[in-house]
Amino acid sequence: MRTGRHGVPEEGPKIDSGNVMHAWLRDLFPVNRSLMGPGVRETLQYLVHLVPSIERHSIETGTEVNDWVVPYEWRIRDAFIADKKGRRLINFQENNLHVVGYSTRIDAIVERSELDGHLHSLPDLPNAIPYVTSYYNPTWGFCLTENQRSSLPDGPLRVVIDSDFVHGTLDYGDLVIPGESKNEVMLTSYICHPSMANNELSGPVVLAALARWLLSLPQRRYTYRLVWAPETLGAIAYLASHLDHLRRNVVAGWVLTCIGDEGDYSHVASRRGNTLSDRIAAAVLRSEFEPHRFYSYLDRGSDERQWCYPNVDLPMSSIMRTKYGEFKQYHTSLDDTTFVTPAGLAGGFELARRCIEVLELNIPWRANTVGEPQMGRRDLYPTLSTTATAGDSRPLMNVLAYCDGQHDVLDITEMTGLPLESVLSALRTLRSVEVIGL
Amino acid sequence: MRTGRHGVPEEGPKIDSGNVMHAWLRDLFPVNRSLMGPGVRETLQYLVHLVPSIERHSIETGTEVNDWVVPYEWRIRDAFIADKKGRRLINFQENNLHVVGYSTRIDAIVERSELDGHLHSLPDLPNAIPYVTSYYNPTWGFCLTENQRSSLPDGPLRVVIDSDFVHGTLDYGDLVIPGESKNEVMLTSYICHPSMANNELSGPVVLAALARWLLSLPQRRYTYRLVWAPETLGAIAYLASHLDHLRRNVVAGWVLTCIGDEGDYSHVASRRGNTLSDRIAAAVLRSEFEPHRFYSYLDRGSDERQWCYPNVDLPMSSIMRTKYGEFKQYHTSLDDTTFVTPAGLAGGFELARRCIEVLELNIPWRANTVGEPQMGRRDLYPTLSTTATAGDSRPLMNVLAYCDGQHDVLDITEMTGLPLESVLSALRTLRSVEVIGL
Amino acid sequence: MRTGRHGVPEEGPKIDSGNVMHAWLRDLFPVNRSLMGPGVRETLQYLVHLVPSIERHSIETGTEVNDWVVPYEWRIRDAFIADKKGRRLINFQENNLHVVGYSTRIDAIVERSELDGHLHSLPDLPNAIPYVTSYYNPTWGFCLTENQRSSLPDGPLRVVIDSDFVHGTLDYGDLVIPGESKNEVMLTSYICHPSMANNELSGPVVLAALARWLLSLPQRRYTYRLVWAPETLGAIAYLASHLDHLRRNVVAGWVLTCIGDEGDYSHVASRRGNTLSDRIAAAVLRSEFEPHRFYSYLDRGSDERQWCYPNVDLPMSSIMRTKYGEFKQYHTSLDDTTFVTPAGLAGGFELARRCIEVLELNIPWRANTVGEPQMGRRDLYPTLSTTATAGDSRPLMNVLAYCDGQHDVLDITEMTGLPLESVLSALRTLRSVEVIGL
Repeated sequence: MRTGRHGVPEEGPKIDSGNVMHAWLRDLFPVNRSLMGPGVRETLQYLVHLVPSIERHSIETGTEVNDWVVPYEWRIRDAFIADKKGRRLINFQENNLHVVGYSTRIDAIVERSELDGHLHSLPDLPNAIPYVTSYYNPTWGFCLTENQRSSLPDGPLRVVIDSDFVHGTLDYGDLVIPGESKNEVMLTSYICHPSMANNELSGPVVLAALARWLLSLPQRRYTYRLVWAPETLGAIAYLASHLDHLRRNVVAGWVLTCIGDEGDYSHVASRRGNTLSDRIAAAVLRSEFEPHRFYSYLDRGSDERQWCYPNVDLPMSSIMRTKYGEFKQYHTSLDDTTFVTPAGLAGGFELARRCIEVLELNIPWRANTVGEPQMGRRDLYPTLSTTATAGDSRPLMNVLAYCDGQHDVLDITEMTGLPLESVLSALRTLRSVEVIGL
Repeated sequence: MRTGRHGVPEEGPKIDSGNVMHAWLRDLFPVNRSLMGPGVRETLQYLVHLVPSIERHSIETGTEVNDWVVPYEWRIRDAFIADKKGRRLINFQENNLHVVGYSTRIDAIVERSELDGHLHSLPDLPNAIPYVTSYYNPTWGFCLTENQRSSLPDGPLRVVIDSDFVHGTLDYGDLVIPGESKNEVMLTSYICHPSMANNELSGPVVLAALARWLLSLPQRRYTYRLVWAPETLGAIAYLASHLDHLRRNVVAGWVLTCIGDEGDYSHVASRRGNTLSDRIAAAVLRSEFEPHRFYSYLDRGSDERQWCYPNVDLPMSSIMRTKYGEFKQYHTSLDDTTFVTPAGLAGGFELARRCIEVLELNIPWRANTVGEPQMGRRDLYPTLSTTATAGDSRPLMNVLAYCDGQHDVLDITEMTGLPLESVLSALRTLRSVEVIGL
Repeated sequence: MRTGRHGVPEEGPKIDSGNVMHAWLRDLFPVNRSLMGPGVRETLQYLVHLVPSIERHSIETGTEVNDWVVPYEWRIRDAFIADKKGRRLINFQENNLHVVGYSTRIDAIVERSELDGHLHSLPDLPNAIPYVTSYYNPTWGFCLTENQRSSLPDGPLRVVIDSDFVHGTLDYGDLVIPGESKNEVMLTSYICHPSMANNELSGPVVLAALARWLLSLPQRRYTYRLVWAPETLGAIAYLASHLDHLRRNVVAGWVLTCIGDEGDYSHVASRRGNTLSDRIAAAVLRSEFEPHRFYSYLDRGSDERQWCYPNVDLPMSSIMRTKYGEFKQYHTSLDDTTFVTPAGLAGGFELARRCIEVLELNIPWRANTVGEPQMGRRDLYPTLSTTATAGDSRPLMNVLAYCDGQHDVLDITEMTGLPLESVLSALRTLRSVEVIGL
């Protein structure tokens, strides 16, 4: 079998294109996801279609998960605000963001002034419908553009939300891809937002592509654990049943979020800030992904809040393109399938893939000889010693000098000041002539 | 019992005002203290009157204390320089700084030129009488203002010092205030200078007020050890009898000195520079006391020289207002009861009190839950999730994120970049809803 | 016996002058050294004449030394390029650099064009003969100045290299000078270059002078191991037979190279960069040798490549004047006995000597007393305490403050900010009055 760089077969690995990922995203976009309910299950079913080995799990309403209780499922069939002639002015059927998530049932004629406290719009983004939820406090509300709000008539309006709450399940999917070691790399994203593309669909879609790529590799040093679950409660529920295992086995991992736009590549550090995940992501970003930004854990906002929580303390950080909250479309109807692009998704996928590739190779290699090996007879050192040939082999010899079983690839990259890819290339050469080993 | 912040009864603790401390200081100012003798004992008696539980101790002349021997007591009744008509030109009765401390007895008619080698004045401060001592080398001398010196007549003068040296005692006082833990916080100042207000009376007076405040607290986590002893020899003598105990028990502490003027708040680091005492004082100064200055141990000059000496190595630093040697009045008659003010003393007391308060709370708290707790049902998180409400709870959640049993309050303050008081406030909130514990 | 600073007899130690060392260097300059052969043995014999206790060792051709095999000795008797009239245009008898080291035998009439690929010259240094070797790949060649090359006639030329390869030995010398401790300081240089003065003869010559000085000292805390061996292969061969001993015993050491010109004093760090050797050399350079330069291990180029190699990992760095490769004369005939000067050699020797002296004194001293000692009765503190006398004893007391058995002389130098010599002087004083000890 022909193998390319990193010892991986050259045509073997499956890398889905940005266009392919974008098509998946467009398929999933209209589904009305929420914390729990049919939208989550429909999304998982689609992901299983892409990656058949994903396993689906459900946790019943009422189950205690750590400090929380799994609530009822929210079922919504219809919702609108209509004028006295019955014309729908705001219509859930047109955009599922129009209703506050987990709104209670209502069918009433209300005065405009009475309605106002139940309306959510964004004066600074007059064409955007905001995304609002109230999972744990019973209330109802409508989200609409500022322009729609201004054009609502003064008179009494009919508001209908045809929803109810049923005993149901919190659903999530996971996939464990075994490797040579039981040490695990955990990769997660979340599935609980209605029609928004960067936050959230880019995450689950890139994670699906990573699953397909990882499964296609002939070998993996680490075991990979991939999780698609509703944000926050899904992560907390996952911890309730997997905490001991995760604490024992997870050595690195990343949350994937907002990973499909074309903005700067970004990293949100783990709680400790210096885990293997942080170091790998920082090295990859610095050497291969420009422009990029680094954020502190103090700026966190996704499931690293749970994975890194004190009593959990997994060594995980988050990778993304423009960070949540840093793009104006965030949590609005403007976060759509045009804001996320095939190129944006492809870039996000590549960032995650390179983090994994570097992690797989990030071994503290050991020199095999006592004193320098005779590189000349291995064609890696000029046999004729002149001032002109001095220095040609320096990068290679500098990498070799730190193959002492105590410094990993990231250390050597930093210590030699060489580009990450040059270090990886030197290590491949040194390994091929057997002057270094594990 | 009503309790205020820090779990301390709101009106319970006794905080003596700056005016009260200044009145004590004025009472003690005229006493003619020296290394040993009646002045030290009179000062201790006054302190016992303020804090009856202070215990007095005496060490006899001739006792070996580590590398030193307790010398004789110096008794001085009168001293003057008089002209041929018997008029007192320089008079110990007017200012006890006029005589070099531990001067030997003399009664002689001397030529002006002969006298000159025994005179001490400060050309740069022509109205100041300098403070000079010669504890261990027998000599005599007079201190006077530069103006007085210039106006001394040329002719022969009578010099009289009516002093002698007697077998006596080195006296000091200490007070141990028990707390929940046997771990001790040591607070010290010194009592061996004649009539000077900032260096030294501000120290013993603020220490007395701290004793009264500590005794009034309903509970203390630490045990407090307060020491009022002559500088250097008193501290060395204290070490001679307490070294093992102190080394085993003292976890923090501060020397109080020059703590009653209105200049910058200052800190002189411990020998190690990074003890708990250093960290607490630096955090308190940075967050609450402006302007402030930090000095290295290389600039030390008081009893931290003994407490931090290599074979002693207590984790103690020094807190003060303007550092000794940095104000022109230092060790002169200008360091009087107008240079030290009620406001200056109140500020110095408050600095010490806040250091102790923060120390008492500086615990590595632990989160109680696995994954984030449901803050919404505790009214600590917005139940309606919109972009507008995001961020409100961030400071609280950031403090919580580092309650991992490994970072104390100072660490969290540094890691979150929040003001110290905000961190303390967040911890009080988190503790009240029981999401953190010890 | 009268002793001077550092407890060393004042006239006892033998310090060879720069002129003496330069005379040795001029004696050794014409010898035609190579990796192996009579030139190396002649050089060793001269060194034994200077330092009779040096032991000579030989390793036979064909012996495996780690990853290498000791090659044949190269014997060269004559070599020239002659015109058709037999006139020698390039003549090995005039300069042994004219022949590529380890050139194979040839006697042929060749066309100019055919010859060209076997000629080495330096267009940028038209008067310099470059130094070229091909130890492990059989070839032949001539080195000549660019000017000589341009004036070679067009027609056929006779090239003669009268060399052959014989079963022989790799030769080196070493010397172990015992001290109070079995811990060793290793000092090395190399002997394998033909007629060049700074690289290489300055190194072996200064090392010989250090041997004579070390042997003349009445006592040494450390054992010293000095090695004169061919570069690279000699070091690797030395490791083959001494690795375990060296790893167990060597606590510091320096490679001496290019140490006889008058350029900047330089240091090439060890692989770890923070060994005792690095710290000593940096402190000595910073305090006593200006101007100086610091280079990273990434810029290495001599036997520290072997001594510091991962599986060897001795705590050794390199000291020199202008670094190899940084002076234009490097590896050419311009590196001659005028480029190296008596003053240059004397400065290089002094740098090495001071490193050793500081290393010998670099002890974590311990204060003997509990609390400060009474310095006044030891005449080390003013007995009269005035603001004028405060501070006189501060440097001494600051050094004393860190004699805690945990900080060595280098630490104290850094912590106090005092010049290295002031710290050493303070320690001598403190030791003389017995307030510090081991």
